[in-house]
Amino acid sequence: MKTMERISPKAYRSDGFAGKYQELVRKEMIPYQYRVLRDEADNTERSGVFSNYINAGKALRGEKAEPFYGMVFQDSDAAKWIEAAAYSLAAVPDSELERETDELIDLIAAAQDEDGYLDTRFTISDREKRWTNLLEAHELYCAGHMMEAACAYYESTGKRKLLDVMEKNAEHIYRRFIEDGAEGYPGHPEIELALLKMYRAAGNSHCLELAKHFIDCRGVDPGYYEKEKEKRDWFVWGNNPVDYDYQQNGKPVREQTDATGHAVRAVYLYTGMADLASETDDRELFAACRRLWESIVNKRMYITGGIGSTVHGEAFSVDYDLPSDTAYSETCAAIGLMFFASRMLENEVNGEYGDVMEQAFYNTVLAGIQLDGKRFFYVNPLESLPGISGKAPTHRHALTTRPGWYACACCPPNASRLISSLGQYAYGEKGNTVFCNLYVSGDVTFSNGMKLRCETGYPYDFEIRYIVSGEGIIGIRIPHWSEKYTINKNGSAISPEINKGYVYIPVSDGDTVRLSLDGTPRFVYPSEKIPALSGKTSLCRGPLVYCFEGADNGGDVISLSVDPAEEVRVGEYDGELLGGTRRLTAKGYRREPQKGLYSSSAPKKTPCDICAVPYCLWGNRGENQMRVWMDIR
Amino acid sequence: MKTMERISPKAYRSDGFAGKYQELVRKEMIPYQYRVLRDEADNTERSGVFSNYINAGKALRGEKAEPFYGMVFQDSDAAKWIEAAAYSLAAVPDSELERETDELIDLIAAAQDEDGYLDTRFTISDREKRWTNLLEAHELYCAGHMMEAACAYYESTGKRKLLDVMEKNAEHIYRRFIEDGAEGYPGHPEIELALLKMYRAAGNSHCLELAKHFIDCRGVDPGYYEKEKEKRDWFVWGNNPVDYDYQQNGKPVREQTDATGHAVRAVYLYTGMADLASETDDRELFAACRRLWESIVNKRMYITGGIGSTVHGEAFSVDYDLPSDTAYSETCAAIGLMFFASRMLENEVNGEYGDVMEQAFYNTVLAGIQLDGKRFFYVNPLESLPGISGKAPTHRHALTTRPGWYACACCPPNASRLISSLGQYAYGEKGNTVFCNLYVSGDVTFSNGMKLRCETGYPYDFEIRYIVSGEGIIGIRIPHWSEKYTINKNGSAISPEINKGYVYIPVSDGDTVRLSLDGTPRFVYPSEKIPALSGKTSLCRGPLVYCFEGADNGGDVISLSVDPAEEVRVGEYDGELLGGTRRLTAKGYRREPQKGLYSSSAPKKTPCDICAVPYCLWGNRGENQMRVWMDIR
Repeated sequence: MKTMERISPKAYRSDGFAGKYQELVRKEMIPYQYRVLRDEADNTERSGVFSNYINAGKALRGEKAEPFYGMVFQDSDAAKWIEAAAYSLAAVPDSELERETDELIDLIAAAQDEDGYLDTRFTISDREKRWTNLLEAHELYCAGHMMEAACAYYESTGKRKLLDVMEKNAEHIYRRFIEDGAEGYPGHPEIELALLKMYRAAGNSHCLELAKHFIDCRGVDPGYYEKEKEKRDWFVWGNNPVDYDYQQNGKPVREQTDATGHAVRAVYLYTGMADLASETDDRELFAACRRLWESIVNKRMYITGGIGSTVHGEAFSVDYDLPSDTAYSETCAAIGLMFFASRMLENEVNGEYGDVMEQAFYNTVLAGIQLDGKRFFYVNPLESLPGISGKAPTHRHALTTRPGWYACACCPPNASRLISSLGQYAYGEKGNTVFCNLYVSGDVTFSNGMKLRCETGYPYDFEIRYIVSGEGIIGIRIPHWSEKYTINKNGSAISPEINKGYVYIPVSDGDTVRLSLDGTPRFVYPSEKIPALSGKTSLCRGPLVYCFEGADNGGDVISLSVDPAEEVRVGEYDGELLGGTRRLTAKGYRREPQKGLYSSSAPKKTPCDICAVPYCLWGNRGENQMRVWMDIR
Repeated sequence: MKTMERISPKAYRSDGFAGKYQELVRKEMIPYQYRVLRDEADNTERSGVFSNYINAGKALRGEKAEPFYGMVFQDSDAAKWIEAAAYSLAAVPDSELERETDELIDLIAAAQDEDGYLDTRFTISDREKRWTNLLEAHELYCAGHMMEAACAYYESTGKRKLLDVMEKNAEHIYRRFIEDGAEGYPGHPEIELALLKMYRAAGNSHCLELAKHFIDCRGVDPGYYEKEKEKRDWFVWGNNPVDYDYQQNGKPVREQTDATGHAVRAVYLYTGMADLASETDDRELFAACRRLWESIVNKRMYITGGIGSTVHGEAFSVDYDLPSDTAYSETCAAIGLMFFASRMLENEVNGEYGDVMEQAFYNTVLAGIQLDGKRFFYVNPLESLPGISGKAPTHRHALTTRPGWYACACCPPNASRLISSLGQYAYGEKGNTVFCNLYVSGDVTFSNGMKLRCETGYPYDFEIRYIVSGEGIIGIRIPHWSEKYTINKNGSAISPEINKGYVYIPVSDGDTVRLSLDGTPRFVYPSEKIPALSGKTSLCRGPLVYCFEGADNGGDVISLSVDPAEEVRVGEYDGELLGGTRRLTAKGYRREPQKGLYSSSAPKKTPCDICAVPYCLWGNRGENQMRVWMDIR
């Protein structure tokens, strides 16, 4: 029993802060990726996605086909693009974009084998290798992404051609893994959460059964990948099949306790698990999800909502190993954490999940995107040190400025689909109650008939006004960081009780509910168990983590320390600064340069103002020092 | 023209602090390694060193030989053992040890090919591979170590069998690289410094010429290793031959400016360069050495005298990249830095070199050795975090306790030979001046006839008394850390001028010179350019860097901060504590545990005493937290 139902992609129209990002996705990222997929973009490597589908179609028809091009999971780029396009079309109709999408869907349909198999890598050639390398070949991963795309396009446009293709594909997989009893589970989880979307969109119970199968068989035989490897004479990267923690298959998922391994894979898996738990009212599975959630948020997550702290395998490290300068903290992993949090909300309405959703969104997800929508961070360190970052052997991954689109770019299209569908995270509903999980200005229409118009300058202002059409109950999350807040209904203060981070307010047609949160900047302190952060503090305002960049501080932030006892000044909203933001100004000190590497003379410090900008906007002014966690005094 | 000449290994007899370590080497490390070399030691992997020599001898005589066993540089273990044994014999005669050494030398001599070639790896088999892989096969490295052993054994015992063997070997190498004009230079520098020892011990000018050749041809053709690789169809590790910085061959050595690449190789090379510069009065070469020295000590060295901050290639990283918890800081690299410093002193009498020698010796070199002489750190982090260190993917190398002897153990025998020959670093002479570079209690006899008896409890007490026999001038280093000091000759205070870190005192027979250094504990601050250390301080006393261990501080040191404004208490010398040491007690604070990973509540801090012990003694009480750089207040 879901405690909260997802709203339709068509139910929300954004404006304001989120709207600006949605426009960037619509006007820059979706069109640019389209050119990439067609190998028509400048300044990027060949993608081959369109041509792979064309060639797979030819191969099926017995025509001469060019070889497959790209990564083994190249098809997933088409899927993520379609999904982003679908959500974008739901919000803003665009007949040209719809035509382009239909055209790509036609190519995909023509690349599907008679038996329902769909993966250009093993359709153009190497047919005999199908399903022989679940560890690395990502067939189930690609299928999952295309299922998500199919559901999104169907829900957004009502067109079911791709949904039919993917239902046929799901039946193919069902036959293999359920009816024929083939062993194995996905090397890269993703299809689990996608099958649950298929189950709801297409009403196909085989999809539910298959999702449950892949979740429940995972780790029952931890040695599956080893056996698989012994049987085949080929590999993709030659991954070691015995790293159970890395593969999240050391134990059945219901017995797992720590978030381990490749961070994106982990949270995609946990998302599927949480979705299945609410869908089937499986409290044991939810308890496992809750343990894994706590492992992440209590021991393995950056203050930016970033996860997967080590570059080695793009993975979770051990508890409390959260270095700033060598952080991996992949954009996609933060997106996956939002997926997981949203599915947890469907098991239990608890403000904690919304808190983490916005922590990941406003900090790591948005940090991934350059203001012009043309360059992207895959890796999101919390400290950037020109001269060391990107150069030292341990910091090669920690680039100081965003690189352009990669040939097979996971993070940019993942961010596109997330941002385009933000309404599905911001809102939820259940019976006559509607839930406001995030504060996003715009209009939303619920299936129970209620409509809300939300007006706010969030995350830079902390007044959120809801104008109600229809009647029912509004559940609004009160964030953990806002100790003080006021609520006002039609001009009168009200004091509804907080229940697990939400207030519930009965409303009638024409009501206005106004929530005022506390926008006072606050210093945040890390747990004393995180060695890399001892003695440090960070500056936050609302959901935004701020950072200190050289550009605002005379080049050098490493020699600065802040004084948290002094008041922090909130700057006026400056439309010219970093696309529009507010600067914060703290009091602190600058160390004077010291002679030699080590000195017995205590450093001289001069009081000074220290400026901070939102972390999500860092690196938009060229290479410079950046630091989130500052020394104290 | 050398500004300072090395004393004979036989000239110094130690007691006191250094004597204790020399005894440990003599009684534990040399006998243990002997059993290792003979494959008779318990709890360690097979070494194969003795049997390799036996088999190489058989192969040369046409008898059936077992295959070579071990690393390609396995022979170097024999060399380092003989060198340590030689120095030990010079100090303390031991007929059994001498017999064992002679026996091994006989095996080595029998393993030398007619043409002078000596390397069991390519004598037992694969003869045709000789000299075809200078990048990786370490033939010149092994030859260099055996030359050092030969010189040491000759100087210590007067026996020249091994010296003759190695002179023949040097002539073989001379013919190949000088007379026959073979291209190439050592993948692992070492032979350069060894050939200079050979030149002096055997008086063979070919050795000087060959040392100069290998130094001067290095990097003139940076592509040499690539060409070499193309010509051969085999490899040892498959090293990439184009990483010029790593190989110190991107430019001729005279043009190099930054200390780069594998740290041990770098300082062995620089040692040879500095030795050649003083031997041949080559000021251009000395200027290059000085630039490389400054690159190390001003930008790339830990406060412990450790170098090579990254595990990736056991190498130097970029400037100011000096992380504590992931430090590599190999014991052998600190030993190599002492070699380099000692050769710099022979170019220029300057206290800076002695300062670094003792910094490396009392901290990193000694930290390598467990108090029982049975276990050894190869890697010397400045922070140890059970739960993360040794476990997180980025910290696998940073073990929390010393492992036992490896099959081919570079660091323990390197420490053995360094400690056994400490007198050669502590003292020097030139004409009627004798130099006291380090303060080591014991007796020393100079070739100019002067004798000194040094009495001191250094590094735990700071009174150093020299009792003179004969006459001349004593040059005594005044360390940079002792701002205040007094000198007293025969009971009367004197105030000799300091010249580049040394005071020069004329003495006559029977004089007593007493130096009192400042033993006040001092807080040391890192350069503001080292990002990993911002906001931190360390506690030092004399040459000793102190560290804070869980064992003295209720288990947890991460949540402690020190108050450098408060006085530090120096504990009584405690013979029972860590083999005899003094504890320091600082004032500071302990943070109370915080709820959650991140919190807006400022941490509560309770004043407390915080205890420190010398860094070189850490990890002798089981796994526990350890930190050198502490937060301030």
